[in-house]
Parts: sequence; structure tokens; C-alpha cells
Amino acid sequence: MSRYSAGLDFGTNSVRAVIVNIADGEIAGSAVFNYPGGEMGVLIDPSDPNVARQNPADYIAGIEITLTAALKQACSSDPDCAANVIGIGVDTTGSTPIPVDTAGNALALKDEFKDNLNAMAWLWKDHTAYREAAEITVAAQAAHPEYLAKCGGVYSSEWYWSKLLKCARTDRRVFEAAAGWVELADWIPAVLTGNTVLSQLPRCICAAAHKAMFHPAWGGYPDHDFIASFDNGILSKARSSLPDTAVTIADTVGVLTTEWARKTALPPGIPVAGGALDAHLGGVGSGIRPGSMVKVIGTSTCDLAVAPLSSSINDIPGVCGVAPESILPGTYGIEAGQSAVGDIFNWYVHKLQPSGMSHAVLDQEALKLQPGASGLLALDWHNGNRTILADQQLTGVILGLTLHSTPAEIFRALVEATAFGARMIRDRMQEYGVPIERIINCGGIAQKSPLVMQIYADVLNCPMLIAASEQACALGAAISGAVVGGAYSDFDQATSAMTSLDDVNYTPIAKNVETYDRLFSLYRRLHDLFGTHGYAENQYDVMKELIVIRESSRR
Amino acid sequence: MSRYSAGLDFGTNSVRAVIVNIADGEIAGSAVFNYPGGEMGVLIDPSDPNVARQNPADYIAGIEITLTAALKQACSSDPDCAANVIGIGVDTTGSTPIPVDTAGNALALKDEFKDNLNAMAWLWKDHTAYREAAEITVAAQAAHPEYLAKCGGVYSSEWYWSKLLKCARTDRRVFEAAAGWVELADWIPAVLTGNTVLSQLPRCICAAAHKAMFHPAWGGYPDHDFIASFDNGILSKARSSLPDTAVTIADTVGVLTTEWARKTALPPGIPVAGGALDAHLGGVGSGIRPGSMVKVIGTSTCDLAVAPLSSSINDIPGVCGVAPESILPGTYGIEAGQSAVGDIFNWYVHKLQPSGMSHAVLDQEALKLQPGASGLLALDWHNGNRTILADQQLTGVILGLTLHSTPAEIFRALVEATAFGARMIRDRMQEYGVPIERIINCGGIAQKSPLVMQIYADVLNCPMLIAASEQACALGAAISGAVVGGAYSDFDQATSAMTSLDDVNYTPIAKNVETYDRLFSLYRRLHDLFGTHGYAENQYDVMKELIVIRESSRR
Repeated sequence: MSRYSAGLDFGTNSVRAVIVNIADGEIAGSAVFNYPGGEMGVLIDPSDPNVARQNPADYIAGIEITLTAALKQACSSDPDCAANVIGIGVDTTGSTPIPVDTAGNALALKDEFKDNLNAMAWLWKDHTAYREAAEITVAAQAAHPEYLAKCGGVYSSEWYWSKLLKCARTDRRVFEAAAGWVELADWIPAVLTGNTVLSQLPRCICAAAHKAMFHPAWGGYPDHDFIASFDNGILSKARSSLPDTAVTIADTVGVLTTEWARKTALPPGIPVAGGALDAHLGGVGSGIRPGSMVKVIGTSTCDLAVAPLSSSINDIPGVCGVAPESILPGTYGIEAGQSAVGDIFNWYVHKLQPSGMSHAVLDQEALKLQPGASGLLALDWHNGNRTILADQQLTGVILGLTLHSTPAEIFRALVEATAFGARMIRDRMQEYGVPIERIINCGGIAQKSPLVMQIYADVLNCPMLIAASEQACALGAAISGAVVGGAYSDFDQATSAMTSLDDVNYTPIAKNVETYDRLFSLYRRLHDLFGTHGYAENQYDVMKELIVIRESSRR
Repeated sequence: MSRYSAGLDFGTNSVRAVIVNIADGEIAGSAVFNYPGGEMGVLIDPSDPNVARQNPADYIAGIEITLTAALKQACSSDPDCAANVIGIGVDTTGSTPIPVDTAGNALALKDEFKDNLNAMAWLWKDHTAYREAAEITVAAQAAHPEYLAKCGGVYSSEWYWSKLLKCARTDRRVFEAAAGWVELADWIPAVLTGNTVLSQLPRCICAAAHKAMFHPAWGGYPDHDFIASFDNGILSKARSSLPDTAVTIADTVGVLTTEWARKTALPPGIPVAGGALDAHLGGVGSGIRPGSMVKVIGTSTCDLAVAPLSSSINDIPGVCGVAPESILPGTYGIEAGQSAVGDIFNWYVHKLQPSGMSHAVLDQEALKLQPGASGLLALDWHNGNRTILADQQLTGVILGLTLHSTPAEIFRALVEATAFGARMIRDRMQEYGVPIERIINCGGIAQKSPLVMQIYADVLNCPMLIAASEQACALGAAISGAVVGGAYSDFDQATSAMTSLDDVNYTPIAKNVETYDRLFSLYRRLHDLFGTHGYAENQYDVMKELIVIRESSRR
């Protein structure tokens, strides 16, 4: 008799439910629900491109529809399936805070606020609070530099306190009606378990750490006085609604209510795990463990690593953030990312449209080229740089162009630039003691592009493995469901059983590694030159060195 | 009764003859002959992309065919035309030296050498002698730095002595059979006048100055000992065949032979002017004079200026070269250029092919954009940098790319980069005392692209005028024919009468000038950073400043 767990994966445009066999991680049932609201599920404001909100009603509708459909699919091959689901896990986007009343009801679900964008969930990519983020950064620099040290040095407009302060300043009615703000990753488990009362609502470390300035080192969320220092204490009520501790994905935050069991046909009373952010559970679903970094590669990347709690991992400059148990219980979680990867390739293929070549043709043509043979070098900052510079006001560069530069050569240079960016992150983590022996990649690019993966292997001089699951985030959520359901005593056992790697993997090619080492040292110079204050040196030799490398690569 | 002069214009792929009315410069007849040899008239070697030669037989064939046809066309509206042609002028590519025997016959015309590429004319763009050029530069740095000072600091593989040394080393049979080497610009007038005997063959200052290290300051061609220092005096015979003085386009080097008169139907005995390089006579045909710089804009540019001989113009670092009467008799000639202009636009449109947009559509779309609004900045070094860096090992850069950068924005940034490159040249000349109050542009881009011309006006903060003639080089040759034919006492009178400007011109727009001043200061920093040894400074503010300019331009 098989046993199963359920995973709920709330993405930017849709929610997916999976029913997973706990023995091997095989997905027995899967269903997707596209949020009906707004533009591809995102509520926007034509007058302000920074606005990105979501209707909590869409989340609620999605739970019932996807869980029911996924379970139905799983039951078609195993009629006993429904009764043998032993737990549920949840991942969501974040920081995506939702204003709620004291009972934990989302304001947006009330008639009074149902048409008010400010009462909706403030989606992770909402950038309206950029001024507030800058203010919070300045204030923390002065009063609590340790807060910034944990989040890479700069507080972001995408994060919790920036969004609360922005709402407080622009929509007092909503802000005063809210007893507090709950991350989507906490709100969904609360809804499923009925444990919504704000004063007792569990908060997960994954969404709280650095995004809400939570860290055990200073007793959890930031100091009351610090939060009260903005706008005469306007945020104090929200701060007071927060607990002093946080849960992990190994914690049971409650059990499925009879009502949700009835709606979905799942067994009532099964445990629900603490929530987490989607990329983090993508790491779990890809088999993250000490020594194995996970790169979740999409339009941007999330780069995840873990280290034993016994190791002495301190703050890592430019890396946001380092927090105990934020990814994998029992380990430090280290999270970084590149602001654009797939987005750069998409820009080149779809916006610049060189020679009308398709993505596939460019991949194919670029794969025929030798490292260094184009003489090109690029900086992958088309959407700024998240790690390690934490600077959105950086831009992309292509250097080394000649009258002979081809579309495929430029494409390859852009791919290489993202690989150099990835190496900056990996190197920085290693410098600060994070063990990384191999890298597991997940996402469509990892599975579809031998060009990208071989270049990454060569540039990082590290084997590139590919997560077998196409739904690593949802699988990660289901793994947490399996653990709280008691199928495994810890995540190490659970991921060993439930995750696997693709048969295809990529090994560094010594000759390419050597060439890319030379190119990376040039990349690193331009990186420091344009991206930091600290580096001043003439660059007369950069173009010459690229030509030398080009000539030797072509021989 | 109208009087006429003839101009012969030997380009890279074809020769053109024009018959011009000396009263107003109107072209009464014109004909083109495409050289039949090789690929588009250029003899190449599949095993060495540096080889570019030309068959002197093609030149000879072209004279008869084009002059006859041009004259026939002119006579169709004025039956008395042929008898009223009073002089002939000649311009050619260069440095394009031809190995000849003591009688001035090209070796390539002899049976013995007719299939030997090394016995042909070594076309200006032949780059086989790059090692020899480097050697000559090093030797001159040690022994005669003054030679290099006149040619911008670096002796080129495209020039006379490099080519001779290369031939001496690779084809002794040809080299020993040659009594000397004659520039195409000298050989054509010699052929037309029958004055081919090598020991008395006139050499023009235009081709000799800097390209053959000729300057009156050291008595003409370079010192015999210096030339003898290469390969045990192998070049001494060639050096000894050269005269001590040089002619200008105001000098008559002989009269048309009876035989050529018979072949072409021109009057025998009419004077033939000293030759000159094509771009230089393009300057004359565009109305160059002190204060009026001429930009000959094609795939690359030639930037020409003149200054009174009474002015104290010294060597201009990075500018090759400065020589008395090399462009306009009675003035210093100052010659500079950009290695690629039209070639960069062609690369972008035809090689990169963004969105399949035509040149015309890109022009149109880019014209709608505001200066600075893209946030992009480029370096126009796709084919190296001739002036003021004299460095072929520089490459193109595009900086400031975002996920929103469009094909038209990048195109405009490339055009702006060529404008900034043009400003570097103009500024350098002005710094060293060359008077430049207005700029006359000639060539197809000048006549067809309001985008390019308005950007040049704004970036250089200088009115951009357009030469009316579409055949400025051939017209310039005809003007020299008119002067030696006695129609005008000097070139000032001749160009006043025979050249004119297009009705269209471009005036700087104050707001754009201001924005481009800000962008140019960033261009200049990157120029010095990558193109010189001297400049070391962190560039953290470059991308930020581009964003500031972008935001203010979009307001």
C-alpha cells in the first residue's frame, strides 16, 4: 500500500498542487490553477508600473481546485490514494505580505476593501516602496548595522517592512483596519489548519529571515524601538502582532480542518507543515544538503546553499541572507541570486531578435563555438545585480565587438556573463566557509540547455547536476508534508528517498576551464570597476588580452 | 563657349572619369569601370586574408574606357566639349605602391610576372606587412622619433616601406626585378604624360607624406642610413630611386601624350596635375579651406583640415599626419580618420540584423528618440581606432543595456559613438591650433541620413554642411585639372567656383548639445580607460550617471 503527501506551490501567476508518493517522490497527481485576477494573475495599476498585487480570493479558490484535481488524478491509478495522504506542505512567493484583521481574515476578502489594491497581497515583485526601502536602509545603517549585515547590506523595496511603511503612508484606511500583516507563506498554512488568530499565527523563518529582519541573534523580529522610529510609531501595532519565534518546514503548524478535508477529499486531521518560500523548497525538492548547492534557474536565479549549524558561518557580504534553518532544518540557509538570467536570453532572442534566429538555433550555433574564440566579454547586469553587489542601478555591457561579431557569438557571451555572475556568488560563499562541492540545477533552462549547463560547468569548474523533477518547488513542499506526516525522521532521509537527479550531467572540460579562468579574471575586473567604489586601475590591457585569448582559442 | 576639365578617380573597386564644366563644377559626363580582376577588383589569396592586390592592367584599361565614355556623354549636350578640355587631374587609393622597372613599366604587365600577386599593385588595404610595420615603428622610435611624430606615432602595415620590406622578404625575384616602387597616385599621371622613367618620375607629397615618411623638415624621404638598417640594406636600391622633392596638385607633371589623346579623344598636350589620394581630393571637391573641415564619410571616415602655412601647426599626437600642401597647395594638410563608421552601421543592420529592421527603418525609429533617453553608451572601435589612438587592437563596447533596450536605441547609441569619435578628432585638432569653424560632410551617409547628421551637429556643437557633389573625389581631381589648365590662379578661386553645398544642413540644438556634453564626458573616460595607458579611475558612477541622464531625458 503506497502512502502520499501533498504539496501546494503558490507561484507568481498560478498555484500548483501535487500528490507525491513518499517512497520515491514520484508525482502521482498534479494540477495547476491560473489566478483569474488582473494580468496573468497580477493586479496592476496602469498609472504606476511598480504596483504588483494579488487577490487572496484567488489563492483560496486555487487550493480547492488544484488539490481536488491532483488527488483525483492520483486516485485514478491508486483508488486508495486519498485516504493515504499523510501530510501537506506549502511554498509561496515572498515577501508577499497580506493585511489581515485580528482573526487573520484578509482585508481584501471583506466587501469594504474588495476593490482596494492596497488591501490585497503585496506581491514579491511590487516595487512601490523603493523610497521606504532606502529610508529603512539608512536608519538601520545608523542604529542596527547588524540587521543589514544579514541581508547583504541593503534593505529591499520587495520586502516586508518597506511595504508596510509604504501602505501606512499612502492608504491609512487600509493600514489602520489591518491588525497585522501576514506573509502568504504563513497565511496559507493558517487557512488550511484554521489557526488564523493573528496573535497565535505561526510565522516561518524562511520568509521572516532578512526579508522581515528576523534573526535569533537579536531575539527574532527587529527591535520595537527601531520599528517605532518610522513616522511616529506608525508601524508599532504591526510589530507588536508578531511572535518572538519562528517555525521551520519541519514543524507542524496544525492539522487540516474538517471543512478543507471535505472540500478537497483529503483526510481531515493530517498535519500541515510550516510554509516556506518557493525557491527554498525548490532547493529541498532538488536534494539540497551541505556540499550541494542548488541553483533555481528561471528568468532570474535563486542560489541556495546550506551548512551544518555546527559550522561557523557568519554574515557574508553581499549575500542575503544567512539564517538558521531558513532552507533546511538543522542547517544554516544561505540564499543569493542573480537579477536576470533567462530574462537576458529572452531579451536577446525576443526583443533584439538577431537575424530572426530562434532560441534553439542560437543555442545550437553558440554550442559550436570555442570559449574565448569570439573575443567578447559581457556583464550580466541588464536587470541590475542582486548578489554580490545588491545594486539595481547597474546595467549590462558587451565588450570586444568587431565588424565580424555574430549573433551566436554575442548570445554565447551573454550566457558566459551569467556564468561569471554565478561564479562570483559561488566564490563569495566559499570564501566565507560555505561548503560547495557540486551544484544541482533546477528549472527549464537547466533541463533544456546543454549550452548553458556546459558553460556553467566550465566557468565554475564544478560538475553541474540537474534535478530530475520538473516541479522541484512543489516536490519540496510535498517532502515537508511527508516529514511532518512522520514518514521520515528528518529531511536528509526524506530527500534521499524522494528526490533524484537527471541522468544527464555536465563535467568541466579542462581546456575550457583554463580559458574561462582567464576570461573570468577580466570579468572580475570590470565587475569591480563598474560595480564597486574600491577598484581604480587602467584597463588598457583588457581588449588586448581578449584578442590574445581569441587568437589562441582559434588556433 | 564652355570649358572643361577631366578628373580620374581610382577607387578600391572601380575607376571613375568625369568631365566637369570649369565655370560651376557641374559634371557634364561621367563613367565608371569596375576592375575586372579578382573579387570586386581586388586580387586575394584564399590562404591569407591579409592579401589585397590589384592588377595595373585594370587601371590602364579603365583610363581609356571611362575617359572615352565620360567625354562622349559630355559631348552629347555640347558637341565642342572634347576640344575644350583644358587639363586633367588624378586621385587614387594609397598607399598603393607598384613595383616597376627603370623605365617605369609595372612588373605585373610583363609576361614573366603576370600571374605573380607580389608583382601587382599592393592595395592600400593589404595587411600582410603587419610585422614589418611593427619593426619599422620600433626602429624609428629609437633612431628617428621625428618620423613617427608626423604619422601619429605608429607606422602602419598599410604603408609604403612596410610593403616594400615585406616583398623583399617573401619574394626576392620580384623585389630584385623592381628598380623601384611607385605609388598609384604617381604612376597614373606618369602613364598619361609618358614621363615614366623612374629616375625622373614625379612623386606627390600627398601619398609620400607620412605614408612613405616624407617631410621637408628632414629633406624629403627618410634618411638613407635608416632605410639601409633593415635586412642589410635590402631597401637601399628602392630608396635611391626616390627624388628629394615632391609635387602638389597645383603642379603640372607633364602633358597628355598623343597616344592617350588618340585613345580618349581628349586634346593632346593638355596639362596633367600631380596626383593625390582620393579622400584628399574629396576634401578639395567638398570645398575644404582654412576653417572648414571636411569629413569624407563612408565605411570609414577620412577627416581633413587645412591651416595656413603661416600658422604654427606642429605635430598633433595621434593625428597622421600633418604635412605642407598634402591636401591644398599653400596650406598645411591635416589628415585623420575613424577606422569604421558606415561599417559599424552595416555590421549592425546586416550582420546582427536586429528584428529584421532595414537601415531605413532603424534610421527612422532612432530619429524619434531623445539624446540620452536610452541610457546607452557605446565605443565605436569595432575596427580599432585610427585617430587619435592609432590602435587596431581596440574593440567595440555597448554599455548601459537593460531588459528594455530596443534595436533602435542600440542603433542610435552606435551612431552617437561614431559622433563622439568624430568629436575626439575635431577636439584634438583644435587643441593643436587647427582652425575649425564648420564641417562639410561628403559621402552617401551625409547625403542620406538626417539621423547621423543631426547627431553629429549636436555632439560636435558645430553646423554640419553637406557637399553637394555626389562625386567629390572625382570633382576634386577635375578641379586640379582646371587649375593646372590655367582656368584659375589658385585653389581658393577654383573651389569657390566649382564646389557647392547642399541646400540641406544641420544646426546644433541647444538642449541636445547639453545632453551630449554629459554623455561625451563619459565616453571620454571610457576612451581613456580602455584606449590609453594613462587613466586609472574607478567607474562606479558611469552607470549611475547614464541612468540619471536617462531619467531626465525621458521627463
